Amino acid sequence: MERLNETVLKEVIRQRPAKSHKGTFGRAVLIGGNQQFGGAILMAAQACVYGGTGLTTVISDPVNRSALHARLPEAMFVDWHRSDWIDSVTESADVLLIGPGLGESKDNFDLLQRIVTNQKEHQWLVIDGSAITLTAKYPVTFPYPDQVVFTPHQMEWQRLSGLTIAEQTTAHNQQAQEKLGSLVVLKSHRTQVYGKQIVENSLGTPAMATGGMGDTLAGIITSFLAQFKGSEAAVHGAVFLHSLIGEDLAKDQYVVLPTQISEALPRYMKQYSQQ
Amino acid sequence: MERLNETVLKEVIRQRPAKSHKGTFGRAVLIGGNQQFGGAILMAAQACVYGGTGLTTVISDPVNRSALHARLPEAMFVDWHRSDWIDSVTESADVLLIGPGLGESKDNFDLLQRIVTNQKEHQWLVIDGSAITLTAKYPVTFPYPDQVVFTPHQMEWQRLSGLTIAEQTTAHNQQAQEKLGSLVVLKSHRTQVYGKQIVENSLGTPAMATGGMGDTLAGIITSFLAQFKGSEAAVHGAVFLHSLIGEDLAKDQYVVLPTQISEALPRYMKQYSQQ
Amino acid sequence: MERLNETVLKEVIRQRPAKSHKGTFGRAVLIGGNQQFGGAILMAAQACVYGGTGLTTVISDPVNRSALHARLPEAMFVDWHRSDWIDSVTESADVLLIGPGLGESKDNFDLLQRIVTNQKEHQWLVIDGSAITLTAKYPVTFPYPDQVVFTPHQMEWQRLSGLTIAEQTTAHNQQAQEKLGSLVVLKSHRTQVYGKQIVENSLGTPAMATGGMGDTLAGIITSFLAQFKGSEAAVHGAVFLHSLIGEDLAKDQYVVLPTQISEALPRYMKQYSQQ
Amino acid sequence: MERLNETVLKEVIRQRPAKSHKGTFGRAVLIGGNQQFGGAILMAAQACVYGGTGLTTVISDPVNRSALHARLPEAMFVDWHRSDWIDSVTESADVLLIGPGLGESKDNFDLLQRIVTNQKEHQWLVIDGSAITLTAKYPVTFPYPDQVVFTPHQMEWQRLSGLTIAEQTTAHNQQAQEKLGSLVVLKSHRTQVYGKQIVENSLGTPAMATGGMGDTLAGIITSFLAQFKGSEAAVHGAVFLHSLIGEDLAKDQYVVLPTQISEALPRYMKQYSQQ
Repeated sequence: MERLNETVLKEVIRQRPAKSHKGTFGRAVLIGGNQQFGGAILMAAQACVYGGTGLTTVISDPVNRSALHARLPEAMFVDWHRSDWIDSVTESADVLLIGPGLGESKDNFDLLQRIVTNQKEHQWLVIDGSAITLTAKYPVTFPYPDQVVFTPHQMEWQRLSGLTIAEQTTAHNQQAQEKLGSLVVLKSHRTQVYGKQIVENSLGTPAMATGGMGDTLAGIITSFLAQFKGSEAAVHGAVFLHSLIGEDLAKDQYVVLPTQISEALPRYMKQYSQQ
Repeated sequence: MERLNETVLKEVIRQRPAKSHKGTFGRAVLIGGNQQFGGAILMAAQACVYGGTGLTTVISDPVNRSALHARLPEAMFVDWHRSDWIDSVTESADVLLIGPGLGESKDNFDLLQRIVTNQKEHQWLVIDGSAITLTAKYPVTFPYPDQVVFTPHQMEWQRLSGLTIAEQTTAHNQQAQEKLGSLVVLKSHRTQVYGKQIVENSLGTPAMATGGMGDTLAGIITSFLAQFKGSEAAVHGAVFLHSLIGEDLAKDQYVVLPTQISEALPRYMKQYSQQ
Repeated sequence: MERLNETVLKEVIRQRPAKSHKGTFGRAVLIGGNQQFGGAILMAAQACVYGGTGLTTVISDPVNRSALHARLPEAMFVDWHRSDWIDSVTESADVLLIGPGLGESKDNFDLLQRIVTNQKEHQWLVIDGSAITLTAKYPVTFPYPDQVVFTPHQMEWQRLSGLTIAEQTTAHNQQAQEKLGSLVVLKSHRTQVYGKQIVENSLGTPAMATGGMGDTLAGIITSFLAQFKGSEAAVHGAVFLHSLIGEDLAKDQYVVLPTQISEALPRYMKQYSQQ
Repeated sequence: MERLNETVLKEVIRQRPAKSHKGTFGRAVLIGGNQQFGGAILMAAQACVYGGTGLTTVISDPVNRSALHARLPEAMFVDWHRSDWIDSVTESADVLLIGPGLGESKDNFDLLQRIVTNQKEHQWLVIDGSAITLTAKYPVTFPYPDQVVFTPHQMEWQRLSGLTIAEQTTAHNQQAQEKLGSLVVLKSHRTQVYGKQIVENSLGTPAMATGGMGDTLAGIITSFLAQFKGSEAAVHGAVFLHSLIGEDLAKDQYVVLPTQISEALPRYMKQYSQQ
């Protein structure tokens, strides 16, 4: 299995074309954040904006609007009770992320199904957190599975693939991924990505084992898919950069806060865009 | 066409008079921010306050009050459903900015028309974002067009001038501007300003191509109009400084956040005020 | 007229006693912040907390609670519609500040009167902003005028003293202050304090002429009265330190944000406490 | 009486195991924050997250949700009116902290009793602030008193133990602690911890005597109990580290803000984890 290293960042992060506008760098729509887990979608949104996405919209419970704008005025907001607005905002998206802090209620599932059903051929769909659990629990048909990325941790992967954690060997995971037909980012202390290629992250530190780290990774993946060609490599780059920043911060910190990783993205991406 | 350079900043940014009070540095009123695009008016307000405006008031949907004050207690707030308060606050303004995150509903248009109709002879009016689209869509008569600045990007300029993006040559733009009788800041990777003079920005970086950058520019323009004599030059200075800071930050960052530009304003303005 | 200098800080700011608790450093209660001017009371509260007050409570409109706690979890909050809570909180205060962003409605006046009437003999009362205008407009009897500080700017002083700005000479101001029987901090580009002594601030920069600067000064005065003996000197120290920090920041900044002054208080106060 | 020093930090703060996930570093649930004292639970939560806890949930009045997420998206939130959610969240906790900003109403007591009654054998319970006063006022039976930590200041200890401040000698305190059967962190300018061992903090500065400092200590204690084996030593470590950071910051600051201590935790903990 190939191990990710800095090369992937140099290949993926392109220099921005001089003649460009915010549309050039993609439209991302992030769906999640109920009344209990609002912070998750805020962290995903921060990663998405600081990762360089041109336009980022959050669809969430309205209780999360004030905190989002207090932290991140750069993102737009849609109340998830307004289905007319949801349809109009998602239609023009390049990438949709659903799951951070979404919750697992019937309403949450209905929203997930609406998002999945409306997927356009050119759109990427990132399925994270509670959205993975929901797709494992209820039948959902993805119109374009090869434009879908799942980001499970090991327990969510068990729910989705039916493989117990003990059974999650490379061969089994590969079979399950092929059956899904989508990219799988299997998160653990050494994250693996299953797709056309199978790669393993060479980095990762226990200082990153804190709530919100996965939401932040989902936001970076979304941002990279919105901006960079070669989608599988873009996902590899997002996974590697997330850990690279985490390891650097962990040199001085016992625990690394997810939002600190997001804040460091513009500087790290600059370095690799020039090489 | 003349290209803007640092000279404009040295000419525009004056040393503050020793005997002065906050009224000396202008009263700005910023109108925008519906339930979806609240961040836009927050970013414009931050630019306006950090640009040195004496007093800044935001007229917006009340859902945006908490986030505004959490970020920027220096600004005042008026609920845009309170027309009595709107009239009293706008009457004493030196500059009014309308548009960032305003929205394009009938209510938004009614508010725009109220603001436009109430313009006083000495007041500057900056028309940005959705307010441009609305003035293109519905007939609005500006009582003092030569005290108005429009800040369209190319698509908004198409709506306002009737010129397709391909037709937006210097000569055509100049004709359209003369017909409007107002200053036009035509935003692109090399922003141009059409007025008595036609100038082009020599700076601008694709790292600035991210949501909220235009709202921030609108806030700086508003702040400069509130403080500095020679209004056309003040607009030139605002356009140039916005890009100058953006280019500097982009030396170390792949993407520049709009709010980072606002935060840098006091230090940059100090440098040019002394030259 | 004596001019304030660093000596006053060395005299006023004492080294904290080793055996102490938060009660040792005073209880401040700050009243203000309606639905339009909430930022004012937030800025006063930040100055009060960063100035070292042991316990700070804000009594305000409930729309301001979220922004206060997002910025300053160190402060406590009381909804100003709850008169029972107001009475219990104010009773144990050492200093009360009323006025920043209070507003000038009948309800605001009723609250002012309640606060003034309940003043205890040992309590200091700082009357700022709209509270000055209200006391000029309606008859209010202060039970302990020599425990009151007024902080008017020149127009507010005109309303309170009846002296037009042109008439505000040292002699006239002194007569008006003697009639009031309270300390008067007359704010201008060279603030003067009228009391047993008459002093003039030697510092102050036009970079400080921005909305919220007076609210911040009111918060520092409140904090110094809560902590330091020799109340008139404490007010002198607060006035001087506010400008001293402002001038220092203005060496690098065209405009100084009020909240930046508050953030610098702990470091500046440390320097002078050791001399 | 033994005096705490850096040794305790080297013993308590372990290097994180390479193979781990956020569950490895504990689940903390923090209960408090009414409509008046919301900041207290926000500060406790910040200390808990920055101290390295794997997952932190706040149970509080819903008015505190926006400010919590604006400051700390890493924490999750449960509205304290939802008893079904409370039960499900607390069941899986490793440590529960109740008290910061809780209030002393009948409803607050009912919530306290629900939390105490539901304590599981393996769970630690930290009783702070108003929760101490409530347990002193009303009879509460702790199912596992040896898994309970009380964090009173001297007045709260008087209420809980019946000892007046003058009577709070080491011997009396020890007797009272033995009767309780729980750990007691008796806060003063030299905090003492009563348990199997009796220890005194060698550090502590009057610059820390400001509102919220105790809430922050409670959050650090909770975080250390969630992560580190040898619970009594973990509490010692939390007490010592809180003061150590405070003393360091006080070298440059007249007053130390509680949130500054939390922000410094990751760097300080790193240093001691390597020794």
